[in-house]
Amino acid sequence: MHISELETPAVAVDVDVLERNLASMAEYAGRHGLQLRPHTKTHKIEAIAQMQRRHGSQGLTVAKSEEAEVMAHAGCADILVAYPVYGQAKWQRLARLARERRITVAVDSITPAEGLAAEAVRAGSTIGLLVELDVGMRRCGVPGPEAALALAQRITGLPGVEMRGLLYYPGHIWDRPEAQATALASVEAQLAAVLDALRRAGIPAPIVSGGSTPTARNSHRVRGTTEIRPGTYVFNDRNTLGVGACAAEDIAVRVLATVVSTAVPGRAIVDAGSKTLTTDRWISGNDQGFGSVDGYPGIKITGLSEEHGHLDVSQSAAPPRVGERVAIVPNHVCPCVNLHSRLFFHSKGEVLGSWEVDARGRIH
Amino acid sequence: MHISELETPAVAVDVDVLERNLASMAEYAGRHGLQLRPHTKTHKIEAIAQMQRRHGSQGLTVAKSEEAEVMAHAGCADILVAYPVYGQAKWQRLARLARERRITVAVDSITPAEGLAAEAVRAGSTIGLLVELDVGMRRCGVPGPEAALALAQRITGLPGVEMRGLLYYPGHIWDRPEAQATALASVEAQLAAVLDALRRAGIPAPIVSGGSTPTARNSHRVRGTTEIRPGTYVFNDRNTLGVGACAAEDIAVRVLATVVSTAVPGRAIVDAGSKTLTTDRWISGNDQGFGSVDGYPGIKITGLSEEHGHLDVSQSAAPPRVGERVAIVPNHVCPCVNLHSRLFFHSKGEVLGSWEVDARGRIH
Repeated sequence: MHISELETPAVAVDVDVLERNLASMAEYAGRHGLQLRPHTKTHKIEAIAQMQRRHGSQGLTVAKSEEAEVMAHAGCADILVAYPVYGQAKWQRLARLARERRITVAVDSITPAEGLAAEAVRAGSTIGLLVELDVGMRRCGVPGPEAALALAQRITGLPGVEMRGLLYYPGHIWDRPEAQATALASVEAQLAAVLDALRRAGIPAPIVSGGSTPTARNSHRVRGTTEIRPGTYVFNDRNTLGVGACAAEDIAVRVLATVVSTAVPGRAIVDAGSKTLTTDRWISGNDQGFGSVDGYPGIKITGLSEEHGHLDVSQSAAPPRVGERVAIVPNHVCPCVNLHSRLFFHSKGEVLGSWEVDARGRIH
Repeated sequence: MHISELETPAVAVDVDVLERNLASMAEYAGRHGLQLRPHTKTHKIEAIAQMQRRHGSQGLTVAKSEEAEVMAHAGCADILVAYPVYGQAKWQRLARLARERRITVAVDSITPAEGLAAEAVRAGSTIGLLVELDVGMRRCGVPGPEAALALAQRITGLPGVEMRGLLYYPGHIWDRPEAQATALASVEAQLAAVLDALRRAGIPAPIVSGGSTPTARNSHRVRGTTEIRPGTYVFNDRNTLGVGACAAEDIAVRVLATVVSTAVPGRAIVDAGSKTLTTDRWISGNDQGFGSVDGYPGIKITGLSEEHGHLDVSQSAAPPRVGERVAIVPNHVCPCVNLHSRLFFHSKGEVLGSWEVDARGRIH
């Protein structure tokens, strides 16, 4: 079956591009001696996690304790939860998993560390902890050496957990690529100060986990970093393209849609709205539009209702007709995939099969 | 179990408020002799559809052919697909359903009408059609009497389908409540012109389907309207509150979340991000924030990562601590519910059970 025969809306993944993206990131990490620990939030699919492992990833990253369960089920033996998990059921889930898998969790306060420690003791397991450091994103993470050291020291005193190092997320950098060099140097200096404080206190920090798709290929410029956690690179999207973190031919995913109405002059409506694409914005671009339409550079997706994509076709000499199919690059592929139960994968347009989005809805 | 014991994030529905909302809209419709055909896109839950029927709805509205299957399974005998459905598999699904249910579909071009007609003939069923009229939203719908009449005449000539009337969606009105009276009068005039043209041509239009939650209770002011299709009114949200279509005590839904980090000064991070709340904006308000936090009027949800809600707590004298739970009113409840596999329902905080979001992921 050709992808043009899939019922719309549908998410189609070009496996050749996907494989190339996986290989390319693995090559980058290998060349610079960085461990590769992809964030599976982008795909949430066991089969792709397994492909990532075949492409040299040493472990995986998740955001949720239930996602950790899914990736453990996929056979992953080494899982990082890059999230300050709070809640007894979640701590129990991770403590149970830690009996047979290497589980590491990032924390920025003592409370979840104590919760994880208590449950690990109860389960007879050991959970690794990373201290999250805020390097400028202002989301999570302790602010500097003093706070990092204080938290690391308290962690070291807890049973059931093991201090394994630092985690940072340079998610603030990609918005300003022109300032990237300065920003990366600042991250490096912040890491060095914290690592120095830990070293003086005799606290080991063998792991320094960083990266993200937009900055991934600059991770070697942040000395001290031992592993990277890119997520979006598997598929890429309009935002990663906009920030220059991929080329157009590296975008592996398209949302296939059908034009259902052209009754309003200057408009074409497709069957992909906010429940198919998400209302995430084009934050790496001019903030206009909810995706780009292949082959129609003059057409803008100006608005989304829940099931309607509003295309402005007023500037198009030959706009699509009712029944015509279009292929859309979403602004942000991660929450878009999260809206779909199943992705179809193809090679050169020939559908080879589909994957269930295994961890979709595993929100805890 | 109390809702404070639910693992977060979780969506909690106050059934007392829900029942009151259902009764109130039914009372309004009954008082004005309007049929009530709620749009189930908001909840996608069979049990709530059944509650709506007990509260006097004569039928239901859906956007997708697969949603029609779910609501037929819920026992609904009369389903309107308020969407210009395009695609053979979808037409077949609806033609099969039409053997045992009353199925009506809104169209604004002849192509889907012909597709539905062909599949209805094949299935030995009859599908009703409404001509969709654009009354100012500029999304779907033919522009006026001439186009409406031309389409209605072509529909009348097709086998397997039956012309049943008009559909309009006044979704453009709620953005400008001050102009609502003028806008409603304009809709009435547009309807009258089309109904007059149909009458002269001897084409019956027993159904004139309108409404939406923001304008629902003004539907009697649009003469000619025979039924209304409000959706959001079951739960309400920050946007329906902002536009004055409900009071604060009519909001039946909360997203329960836990503070997971306060490490960054002025910030609190909760475990409800864009994959829990959606990035839908506060279009009825000042466009600031991704929801409101009960009991913390000074706290703003300034940004969302996928699993992180970023709370600006810099103006709060006593901001929440790590582990504290908050209840969030989402900007737009329909796509929010669509992110969850299950909703919990409670009375006065006591959890009575949960509903699977039955039609979630039924995207065709």
